[in-house]
Amino acid sequence: MRAFGIDCGTEFTGYGVVEMDHEARTPRLIHVAAGTIRLNKKEKTPLRLAQVYQELIGLMERHAPDCVAIEEVFFSANVKSALKLGQVRGVAMLAAASSGLTVAEYAPLTIKSSVTGYGLAAKEQVQFMVTRLLELECAPDSPDAADALAIAICHIHTAQTLLLQGANR
Amino acid sequence: MRAFGIDCGTEFTGYGVVEMDHEARTPRLIHVAAGTIRLNKKEKTPLRLAQVYQELIGLMERHAPDCVAIEEVFFSANVKSALKLGQVRGVAMLAAASSGLTVAEYAPLTIKSSVTGYGLAAKEQVQFMVTRLLELECAPDSPDAADALAIAICHIHTAQTLLLQGANR
Repeated sequence: MRAFGIDCGTEFTGYGVVEMDHEARTPRLIHVAAGTIRLNKKEKTPLRLAQVYQELIGLMERHAPDCVAIEEVFFSANVKSALKLGQVRGVAMLAAASSGLTVAEYAPLTIKSSVTGYGLAAKEQVQFMVTRLLELECAPDSPDAADALAIAICHIHTAQTLLLQGANR
Repeated sequence: MRAFGIDCGTEFTGYGVVEMDHEARTPRLIHVAAGTIRLNKKEKTPLRLAQVYQELIGLMERHAPDCVAIEEVFFSANVKSALKLGQVRGVAMLAAASSGLTVAEYAPLTIKSSVTGYGLAAKEQVQFMVTRLLELECAPDSPDAADALAIAICHIHTAQTLLLQGANR
């Protein structure tokens, strides 16, 4: 299974692609790709959204994931920032739908628990554990890319658990 | 000038296309098209967003507007509803960018003032005035379509004013 995680942001949108290697003796996580889509603050919103959409479509085509995972959002500084984040989120979900992929959403607590074992872990702990779990030589290029990898790992862990629960029934 | 107004909503998204006829003795507004994109509540969000996107892209291609106008949003019941509305808004702005059109945003007060002369006008007053200004035989098929027409009219009025101001300098 290959999961494409997206950490949406109005300025930086992180992405991370993770695969579960079932061929290995002990199934292990493999880092496929990760990075950050950096938006030009001076550009008008519709063009910024078009950039996110086109880059995500290209990345999904290149890395051929089985599914897309994003973070659920419950809180925001205010309505205006929630609306702006929603715009990027809408475009990210559209990119998944246009690529024929389903979208799974996970609460921040679930994502953090999945990689650090602690739902209220700090950003640095998430970065540290993602680097360790994926056996990376150095930390991902941004906290957003690290979060996106964490979201992808969370999705793979959840899918594994559901699979095992099904097998044990 | 032909303007494409969009009134974004998580369930119903209205659209309205209005043209200013400069050939007439007294320049007048012409109703080109209006309608409502109704989303299936049971459908998953990415597929609902894909429906809005595809329908808007098709409508923009068919009616060939010069620009797109949408409503600015400042208030919302809560962060969750702002986020959901933002998702539809992002996809609407992307549809405009993908169609090579610029997007103008107007505050609700400006839109209502533009069609009724009163910034705090009720929904029914907007519907009544849109029907009258565009010389329609009956009111648009939904309040969302009426709002979208009001947004398009507001854009045309604003563009006219800017043009006149430029000519008088």
